[in-house]
Amino acid sequence: MEVKDNVDNQTDIQEEEKGKEAERARWYTDTILQSELADYSPVKGCMVIRPYGYALWEQIQKALDQMIKDTGHSNAYFPMLIPESFMTKEKDHVEGFAPECAVVTHGGGKKLEEPLIVRPTSETIINYMFAKWVQSWRDLPLLINQWANVVRWEMRTRMFLRTTEFLWQEGHTAHATAAEAEEEAQRMLGVYKDFAENWMALPVLTGEKTETERFAGAVRTYSIEAMMRDAKALQAGTSHFLGQNFAKAFEIRFQQAEGGLEYAWQTSWGVSTRLVGAIILGHGDEKGLILPPRLAPIQIVIVPIYKSDAEKATVLERCDQVYNTLKPIARVHLDRREQYTPGWKFNHWEQKGVPVRINIGPKDVAANVVEIARRDTGEKMRGVQMDGLEKQLEQLLSTVQASIFERALAFRKENTRQIADYADFKSIMEEKNGFVEAHWCGKTACEASIKEETKATIRVIPFDWKAVDGKCIRCGTATDKRVVLAKAY
Amino acid sequence: MEVKDNVDNQTDIQEEEKGKEAERARWYTDTILQSELADYSPVKGCMVIRPYGYALWEQIQKALDQMIKDTGHSNAYFPMLIPESFMTKEKDHVEGFAPECAVVTHGGGKKLEEPLIVRPTSETIINYMFAKWVQSWRDLPLLINQWANVVRWEMRTRMFLRTTEFLWQEGHTAHATAAEAEEEAQRMLGVYKDFAENWMALPVLTGEKTETERFAGAVRTYSIEAMMRDAKALQAGTSHFLGQNFAKAFEIRFQQAEGGLEYAWQTSWGVSTRLVGAIILGHGDEKGLILPPRLAPIQIVIVPIYKSDAEKATVLERCDQVYNTLKPIARVHLDRREQYTPGWKFNHWEQKGVPVRINIGPKDVAANVVEIARRDTGEKMRGVQMDGLEKQLEQLLSTVQASIFERALAFRKENTRQIADYADFKSIMEEKNGFVEAHWCGKTACEASIKEETKATIRVIPFDWKAVDGKCIRCGTATDKRVVLAKAY
Repeated sequence: MEVKDNVDNQTDIQEEEKGKEAERARWYTDTILQSELADYSPVKGCMVIRPYGYALWEQIQKALDQMIKDTGHSNAYFPMLIPESFMTKEKDHVEGFAPECAVVTHGGGKKLEEPLIVRPTSETIINYMFAKWVQSWRDLPLLINQWANVVRWEMRTRMFLRTTEFLWQEGHTAHATAAEAEEEAQRMLGVYKDFAENWMALPVLTGEKTETERFAGAVRTYSIEAMMRDAKALQAGTSHFLGQNFAKAFEIRFQQAEGGLEYAWQTSWGVSTRLVGAIILGHGDEKGLILPPRLAPIQIVIVPIYKSDAEKATVLERCDQVYNTLKPIARVHLDRREQYTPGWKFNHWEQKGVPVRINIGPKDVAANVVEIARRDTGEKMRGVQMDGLEKQLEQLLSTVQASIFERALAFRKENTRQIADYADFKSIMEEKNGFVEAHWCGKTACEASIKEETKATIRVIPFDWKAVDGKCIRCGTATDKRVVLAKAY
Repeated sequence: MEVKDNVDNQTDIQEEEKGKEAERARWYTDTILQSELADYSPVKGCMVIRPYGYALWEQIQKALDQMIKDTGHSNAYFPMLIPESFMTKEKDHVEGFAPECAVVTHGGGKKLEEPLIVRPTSETIINYMFAKWVQSWRDLPLLINQWANVVRWEMRTRMFLRTTEFLWQEGHTAHATAAEAEEEAQRMLGVYKDFAENWMALPVLTGEKTETERFAGAVRTYSIEAMMRDAKALQAGTSHFLGQNFAKAFEIRFQQAEGGLEYAWQTSWGVSTRLVGAIILGHGDEKGLILPPRLAPIQIVIVPIYKSDAEKATVLERCDQVYNTLKPIARVHLDRREQYTPGWKFNHWEQKGVPVRINIGPKDVAANVVEIARRDTGEKMRGVQMDGLEKQLEQLLSTVQASIFERALAFRKENTRQIADYADFKSIMEEKNGFVEAHWCGKTACEASIKEETKATIRVIPFDWKAVDGKCIRCGTATDKRVVLAKAY
């Protein structure tokens, strides 16, 4: 079979170019492959999500799905293949997505009368259905979410961060008023922030995107932006206020309570398997992954240590006991494999980012204690009493969760700078990365030349920032508007 | 927009042909639309799964996913787009699936060098990866499951039963020996039987399929077959022993413990959103759906009954109390809507198949009782004491679950006949449907002419049936082999 492994091909090329970035890219790929989160696939730009990576995605899905349901949304499923004519209904939308589409031209051995697009996102097909379902103000708000795969033909792909096919959830809602839709768009951004900070242990900035970075078809796009360990930004989720753009394109009109017909006001919002990339890049270190306990597929791993058969029996008996004690309070795994040494297992589970490891040897059994090792700090606690182990581990998992969040927050603080001078800005972007808070006049031309000259982009116009007089970092025009800039994944 | 609702178009044509069957088809479609399980979509052969239908699918997923994990399998995710050349690696596989493929020929605005097939099933892409992962006997068994969408270009589509795109799970495994793979194929058929009987409340026959009905690329195909309320059969799940067919096509070879290289032995198995169709057709009645309590998205609905505002206050207070009491033990919903009468709500929730309804009026509040109505039997229990309601409802849900299973089992018994005479067989198939146990000589020609003449097919060659002398129902040749025949969906 003459098929090449296709994800990250582009990255390999990039790697030859630059030292530090290349090293970082190699670390990222190696970590994914060695921890068995994912593998290359023979399909251009697509990866295979392996069981360990998929288990992490399942934890993400489970927590987020509950948050989406708790805010009143219902899951549904819409066709993946969308008639080409649908894509052209909303002018900006088609311009944005047409270059990225995969097109089905043949089905059942025949050429199709109308080609079908593999969904790059589902606004068009979902809003076609909304037009059928929404007749009266009583049908609103309509709050739908879909978990699905989507395809966007990307030129440069990287596992989890940007793959041709990826998994995501996409929320689509319709409301009676602009204010309600706006509130919904911000509510869901808030859900994403909550999820990123309290589950992924990654602090995020929230704010509006500039026109350049806006979703194709939206009136306003909001995003959450996290800082990775190399001080670059990663957009981790977006929420869009769509106004009446799609409602007009698809004729979603409703009888108002007060009489008269009105177009619905809408939102859409989504996060994807990119979140796995955010966790890898946002917490990992030279040893591999560091997973936040609340999302780790395995929270505690138990490694038995013995030499003789007699030792093996007593040690494994104790390991089973500890396993059964911890099972009700954590996702625990006992590594019984005989073909690997304890040392090999230590490295293995560190690479896989398991938050807490328990080592048990014959002396521990005799003294009725265990040894506990934290993945995040490397700290070891020897001689931990068996008595009350459950409580202690429950506490430790919370501590680790809080601790890696604090570490990420402190790191972001260290790497966030207020800069007024463009030369300073350029050298920061060359040498250190990080977030830069700076004034911007609001002109697309300035934004574009900053990107051209430094590769930095405006990540967000933060919510609720006070007006402060200053000058645009690029052109010097007086303005009181500030933004956050960074180089981004 | 000039797009027609496309699912069930073919059924409409069929409907003009035959009286009873047409009526049944209309009932099926109406039930789905009115209970809001699904809706027509503008995409040929595809449906939209609406929130109520998707919630039912989520319940199915949740229970079955746990059973799949409990038997040692891990979920993973593989690319949806498969290089065309992969499909041709296994001769029988390509012959079976090529006519049903949707083909992506363009991506990112360019014609692709090699067309990509939207997966109709994932043996090819998964086994390509298995070849990378399986090197030694230590890597086996490899037990993978995938929840995914697939596309098969079907000529005649019907919502849930046969749609161009559908959702399913597909298990793919590799083993060191034929015996282990055979055991796995039968184990997973057993899981499907367990799920069908204990969760869906539908008794199923298990057995092997004839060569004609075998999965393209399998050595043996096993299936579970349920009887619908019109006494027709529905194939609800299949499990395949693949032998070494795909291992040879994709070079999955491993170092044996005893030395030497060997091709892996494999299985695959799947169930799909067709299970929703099985629940509708297997339990429903003229009023609509009857959902098995263990899978019903709403198990208990509470309907308040009042006239004055004063009544409303006390009744709703009691409804809230009952809701909170039952919330920990059941999926309960309180229908507070004011624009509908209680009578309208009774019909509404009966149509949606909610197993148990609780009616509460002012007299009930005064007497400290509620009224309970069963969906399956229509039975009403008046004056049920508030005290101990929780226990009673928990018990009632189990009773309903068992009761609809027993009803289905009795119905299958009534409609299962042992027939030796072909004329009798033909008239049964014309007038009554049902399962027929009959002798078959094993020749494909007999099987084909039975289908041609009666539309009945061999559903399974049941496991463990004792040899009984007799004659082939079609050709009269002496044989001791018996099979189950039926007309099927």
